[in-house]
Amino acid sequence: MIDSARIASAIETVRRDVAALHGELVRSGLVVWTGGNVSGRVPGADLFVIKPSGVSYDDLAPENMILCDLDGNVIPGTPGSERSPSSDTAAHAYVYRHMPEVGGVVHTHSTYAVAWAARGEEIPCVITAMADEFGGPIPVGPFAIIGDDSIGRGIVETLSGHRSPAVLMQNHGPFTIGRTAKDAVKAAVMLEDVARTVHIARQGGTVVPIPQEKIDALYDRYQNVYGQPADDRD
Amino acid sequence: MIDSARIASAIETVRRDVAALHGELVRSGLVVWTGGNVSGRVPGADLFVIKPSGVSYDDLAPENMILCDLDGNVIPGTPGSERSPSSDTAAHAYVYRHMPEVGGVVHTHSTYAVAWAARGEEIPCVITAMADEFGGPIPVGPFAIIGDDSIGRGIVETLSGHRSPAVLMQNHGPFTIGRTAKDAVKAAVMLEDVARTVHIARQGGTVVPIPQEKIDALYDRYQNVYGQPADDRD
Amino acid sequence: MIDSARIASAIETVRRDVAALHGELVRSGLVVWTGGNVSGRVPGADLFVIKPSGVSYDDLAPENMILCDLDGNVIPGTPGSERSPSSDTAAHAYVYRHMPEVGGVVHTHSTYAVAWAARGEEIPCVITAMADEFGGPIPVGPFAIIGDDSIGRGIVETLSGHRSPAVLMQNHGPFTIGRTAKDAVKAAVMLEDVARTVHIARQGGTVVPIPQEKIDALYDRYQNVYGQPADDRD
Amino acid sequence: MIDSARIASAIETVRRDVAALHGELVRSGLVVWTGGNVSGRVPGADLFVIKPSGVSYDDLAPENMILCDLDGNVIPGTPGSERSPSSDTAAHAYVYRHMPEVGGVVHTHSTYAVAWAARGEEIPCVITAMADEFGGPIPVGPFAIIGDDSIGRGIVETLSGHRSPAVLMQNHGPFTIGRTAKDAVKAAVMLEDVARTVHIARQGGTVVPIPQEKIDALYDRYQNVYGQPADDRD
Repeated sequence: MIDSARIASAIETVRRDVAALHGELVRSGLVVWTGGNVSGRVPGADLFVIKPSGVSYDDLAPENMILCDLDGNVIPGTPGSERSPSSDTAAHAYVYRHMPEVGGVVHTHSTYAVAWAARGEEIPCVITAMADEFGGPIPVGPFAIIGDDSIGRGIVETLSGHRSPAVLMQNHGPFTIGRTAKDAVKAAVMLEDVARTVHIARQGGTVVPIPQEKIDALYDRYQNVYGQPADDRD
Repeated sequence: MIDSARIASAIETVRRDVAALHGELVRSGLVVWTGGNVSGRVPGADLFVIKPSGVSYDDLAPENMILCDLDGNVIPGTPGSERSPSSDTAAHAYVYRHMPEVGGVVHTHSTYAVAWAARGEEIPCVITAMADEFGGPIPVGPFAIIGDDSIGRGIVETLSGHRSPAVLMQNHGPFTIGRTAKDAVKAAVMLEDVARTVHIARQGGTVVPIPQEKIDALYDRYQNVYGQPADDRD
Repeated sequence: MIDSARIASAIETVRRDVAALHGELVRSGLVVWTGGNVSGRVPGADLFVIKPSGVSYDDLAPENMILCDLDGNVIPGTPGSERSPSSDTAAHAYVYRHMPEVGGVVHTHSTYAVAWAARGEEIPCVITAMADEFGGPIPVGPFAIIGDDSIGRGIVETLSGHRSPAVLMQNHGPFTIGRTAKDAVKAAVMLEDVARTVHIARQGGTVVPIPQEKIDALYDRYQNVYGQPADDRD
Repeated sequence: MIDSARIASAIETVRRDVAALHGELVRSGLVVWTGGNVSGRVPGADLFVIKPSGVSYDDLAPENMILCDLDGNVIPGTPGSERSPSSDTAAHAYVYRHMPEVGGVVHTHSTYAVAWAARGEEIPCVITAMADEFGGPIPVGPFAIIGDDSIGRGIVETLSGHRSPAVLMQNHGPFTIGRTAKDAVKAAVMLEDVARTVHIARQGGTVVPIPQEKIDALYDRYQNVYGQPADDRD
């Protein structure tokens, strides 16, 4: 009883967070029309909350978010369950099943990240902010299309053991992960920022590489600086 | 009597939709000044509603929209009929006369779509979101100038039997069609998004093609997924 | 007495228009910080109204605009006369003295227009909207620096007898003219739009030229279509 | 007593200015997420005010700003002192210690400035607005990473005796300085504007150089024109 009250409260919190974080995708210019989706794991339960499919960003109230189990099935009778969840729900679910440390997943078609993905080219780590956040290049995942677990598997295989919380799925676009949904959104925002900046840098000529030991030092310091949480710095 | 009340009500609905959808063109950055126009067919009547010529986007109230017959003639005595309709009205009318399945038409001079049109180059289908929405490359229509039916004819000849709801009229810009005005606006928004993304992808190097059978699978699934309407997904 | 009341009223109208039109420069993304300036001639008087120098766009109330004679001298004792006018006032004044048909002048450092100006390269007329508005290429004016009449003279010599209401002053940026201040602002907005679109078109490959007789036909029709004023169309 | 009241009042003013100026970074599109920081020296005291680390731009109230001494130590017991200051505080402090004429420092990762920094390439002075504001090219500073005084030293060594108030730290991004925090923010805004414009100009072909004596004349006039302060012109 006490436990189910705790979980009910956790679900409400995740619904609010996930609904609000979609606004950040809009503010940061990462999505058009109804594209893009954010999900968040419910702490202490085998559940996650995700955006409904095809709903306008003006209508993303917490009670419209959809509660799913870790196989991506909608939990019947819960708020929002009359709608279909995002068509990327299976990929989110796969990540939650296979990466227990992940508490949030984001998918967008943000312009510059998709441009690198369309070439199947990883983004080289040539700016210090990228070393801080991503710890090296941003990797490319396999070409995979919707309909089975191949997208989720591609994400998990590419990101497992990798410093980067972002993967560019070839010809498709980026998925990002984080300890929380907010962390995953931050990674999506920073990814588009570095995807754009490195693209423009390279259009103008040859970029200067950063030595690997400097990348390591920057990443190490950023992940541990002052003992503050990773999403609480500039 | 009953039928004319039904049509009057349908006209009001289309006026409201068409007026509101112009706001979407602004929000999505597809138009400058008074450029761009949206029209919507009145269901059950040989009529459509279109934007007046040269009116500021701040003044696009439903009663300012203009009601036309399918030859593009303004219906005298109706609200807004004291103004001229969009100078592209003849092209919209031609589409409604020749494509009975079309319920909405949109024309913009959105930057990246016009850039492809200025080269007379179709946009190759190298990202999965483009396969979903457009089912292949976005085609180029003929060079045609205002003054007769050549623009309308170019649109209809290019799009008839084509999966793409968008055509790039050479040296001019995009026209998009849809089952409804909202669908046509969605196509205009998605078109500019893919025009920009594929342009940037190619500036950075060689893009990876998507095999034709994968494009077919993506398009087929997207058009039929879950039995939901095409504008109700992400 | 009656005449001076008429002129006082005309001055108030121009102050309101010029103040409001600076907001259009911001909305259209043509200016940063306090850059850019709009002026408007007072009909029936040897006077014009221009923006003060270095005032934030949030403070551009009608009473802060500055009234000048056609030599660019501030009219003492009028509202706003305690401030300096825009440092480009001499160039605006030169245009009003030498082009009696001009009722408005705009100067910006809008990004893509300045980029063409930095190369000293005219913008070729390869899109139909450009043929409509500009009637051909957008010309480059001489390199000239502030301090004497050389900027004003460069504008007038380049635009006299030219269809284009816009000139790209080399290494500096665009000036646009119009029958009214609103027309000149429209030209500044359309100029940046075509400067950006043609730049992007060319980055992707070879653009298709428009035959001269088609440019002539488009320009002729646009300037005379339906007998409506030129700023009242889409 | 009187003196400490004067300093307390000065601190309040700088807190308000620094808090408000972060809003300008957002409005001008120079920052994403919680990135970027502005600081301002307290006149008449060995103190400066800087943004806290990792705080959302929506929460940047004056009382959240952090008061530091010129070694970058937070002054205990003052408002905001319970948080960590920006992780770039040591670099700001170094500048204040070594450049007594500097009253404000700004750091961003604005896209185009970082792109030049990633190539380690100075921005050539090919537009007159750049000659006005920067008096020549915008220089590149050394590669230096966070953790000691090397960033601050690189800024000071590059900007000492240089006309430019902006430096591009290699692979990292821009720092700008000014007599006041507002001046430093203006320099950051103008820097991104010229970084973007010159990048785009060069993508389209060869830019026309401005003769050195013209650059000198423009800079000299702009810094002294009409005896107005440098931030009070357009």
